[in-house]
Amino acid sequence: MSAADRLHAVETPGLVLDEGRMLRNIERLRSRLQPLNVALRPHLKTAKSIEVARRVLTGGDGPATVSTLKEAEVFAAAGIRDIVYAVGIAPQKLDRVLAIRARGCDLSVILDSPGQAAAVAEASRRAGARIPALIEVDCDGHRGGLRPDDPALPAVGRMLHDGGAELRGVLTHAGESYGVSGAEAHAAFAERERAAAVAAAGALRSAGLPCPVVSVGSTPTAHAARDLSGVTEMRAGVYVFFDLVMAGIGVCSTDDIALSVLTSVIGQNRERGCLFIDAGWMALSRDRGTAGQAVDQGCGLVCDIEGTVLGDLVVSGANQEHGVVSLRPGSRGALPDLPAGTRLRILPNHACATAAQFGGYEVLPADPAAGLAHWPRFGGW
Amino acid sequence: MSAADRLHAVETPGLVLDEGRMLRNIERLRSRLQPLNVALRPHLKTAKSIEVARRVLTGGDGPATVSTLKEAEVFAAAGIRDIVYAVGIAPQKLDRVLAIRARGCDLSVILDSPGQAAAVAEASRRAGARIPALIEVDCDGHRGGLRPDDPALPAVGRMLHDGGAELRGVLTHAGESYGVSGAEAHAAFAERERAAAVAAAGALRSAGLPCPVVSVGSTPTAHAARDLSGVTEMRAGVYVFFDLVMAGIGVCSTDDIALSVLTSVIGQNRERGCLFIDAGWMALSRDRGTAGQAVDQGCGLVCDIEGTVLGDLVVSGANQEHGVVSLRPGSRGALPDLPAGTRLRILPNHACATAAQFGGYEVLPADPAAGLAHWPRFGGW
Repeated sequence: MSAADRLHAVETPGLVLDEGRMLRNIERLRSRLQPLNVALRPHLKTAKSIEVARRVLTGGDGPATVSTLKEAEVFAAAGIRDIVYAVGIAPQKLDRVLAIRARGCDLSVILDSPGQAAAVAEASRRAGARIPALIEVDCDGHRGGLRPDDPALPAVGRMLHDGGAELRGVLTHAGESYGVSGAEAHAAFAERERAAAVAAAGALRSAGLPCPVVSVGSTPTAHAARDLSGVTEMRAGVYVFFDLVMAGIGVCSTDDIALSVLTSVIGQNRERGCLFIDAGWMALSRDRGTAGQAVDQGCGLVCDIEGTVLGDLVVSGANQEHGVVSLRPGSRGALPDLPAGTRLRILPNHACATAAQFGGYEVLPADPAAGLAHWPRFGGW
Repeated sequence: MSAADRLHAVETPGLVLDEGRMLRNIERLRSRLQPLNVALRPHLKTAKSIEVARRVLTGGDGPATVSTLKEAEVFAAAGIRDIVYAVGIAPQKLDRVLAIRARGCDLSVILDSPGQAAAVAEASRRAGARIPALIEVDCDGHRGGLRPDDPALPAVGRMLHDGGAELRGVLTHAGESYGVSGAEAHAAFAERERAAAVAAAGALRSAGLPCPVVSVGSTPTAHAARDLSGVTEMRAGVYVFFDLVMAGIGVCSTDDIALSVLTSVIGQNRERGCLFIDAGWMALSRDRGTAGQAVDQGCGLVCDIEGTVLGDLVVSGANQEHGVVSLRPGSRGALPDLPAGTRLRILPNHACATAAQFGGYEVLPADPAAGLAHWPRFGGW
């Protein structure tokens, strides 16, 4: 069944998920990591969907990574049993963490300061239940975390271990790997992740502390790492859908992007050389992640309804509910004459940001004989 | 009751609405327009809330402007009886338009091409019900619309009028007024709106066509227009909440901004001179509307929990669930020492984009004795 047939009754703008591409992306990373002998802990913040989680998680019930306690609550209620909440813990969130753990999900938190460690230890003692915590390690100056050689690292570990919490290990994320292109550059960042995490684990163990988990990961490094000695698990998220930012740094091709926004033409201005569509920034998100890349894809790359890229057409601008479609600067193509009502699909800069603008996925099933499916997704905190 | 007392139990990140500031903003524009002798048709796309609509609409049931048919459906179901859907109509949406009209709401559409006019006329004949349509007029090259002297304008009007639809009038929007600063510049754009709309109305009337409605508006022009002769109604939306973009072009001060994001400190990096908060782009939106203004406010301006701006602190960067707070470039201030768990409020660049990231408002009521209220908001199409 063609995409046009399947999408016939979908209102625009709508969020389309190509299940076949998604399953291919999932299988690609799974088989790539097998010889490297690490567990995969997918990040569910991109999809925020129980249907996607079932397909991406090994065994279906974990391990997983989340970015909000809302995600932890929804996925725990859906039966996922092993979750890392990978954003530094605020002390006032520990009651929610304890409540999720009490319902049978092994939820762990991350932190990088003595104040947070004291709060986690105190909450553990108060509840009579050791909250597992990983210490966040800085491998590339991206954001937070302690350097592996920071004397605060074993001190924070000691506060957790001796204070009544569970020191579960260390965690790092090469966020700067998104800023470089190609497998060689990503492999170098993967080695920085590995080296930092293993050094931090060594610092804890040298201080007589436990460190069972050594967690690393980002989509670029997961697809490029060559040696993961000493690492126990890899995290990655956006690889499930991929997007133009990932294509722009060579982790995937545009043919791997499983997510697109279905839209209708609502006008044109031939003098200015542009079309207007009903997908503005409310649908596409404001993400301009390709603006600093070698090829700027504007607010998204334009495809026909079957998902075939239409030459040099990009979404060159966006207001709230209007997208402006024009030829890429320097293009020698011609603006096609697409009347109001023509339906198009837009590949997004950043899958996490675009998916977040919608309440569900219109799914083109991998089975070519199957009709459209709808998978709900959730938002909020 | 202090904001800190009222917000005590709110999870972060959360969306805070200061009702007192909002009511002041609503009253300011209402009283400003009274001597100019035009109706006010507020745009509800910013708030997407029935509680806000009740406070902003004259009489409570209209007139109103919306940017999606979902808004039209929700507000019509809540009793609003006069709505303009101010995004160019796609032909396949006319069945939904007819369904909303059949439920007793006078919903009108806008268009700027013969193809759309033919579709609206055809749908009207098919339904035996004249769909009211306004012709979109281009006053400043911002986006779509026909120029007032375009011969297509009376031709499109004729197609509607003679084809079975209802030619209700003309509509224009000075979207370019957001790019200039100060009352003089905004007044000049207001005059461009007025002159273009009145000229277009004249072109229709000269052709023997009706043009009862002459609709103009944007928040900057609504607050600066001096003469609105020939105009029947003014549209504006973001003025209800205001935001840093509007403050940056002088339409309001930061003390007028009624919307903020409540957030918690989750870490710091003193070496890099930054704090981390649990409001990233998922909460603040990716909107960087002040980037091109005289004062770049980053991803938002930082206030304490009572809403007082904290010197030179801005959200200088954002990942999905992490905001990075640092001093504005060139500041001679010092980064305050705020431990994990400290709660702050962030003023947004763009109220429409930030509000859209949340499912509801935590409302600080105008009555100083009243506790926190919760108003739901909706999204989607």
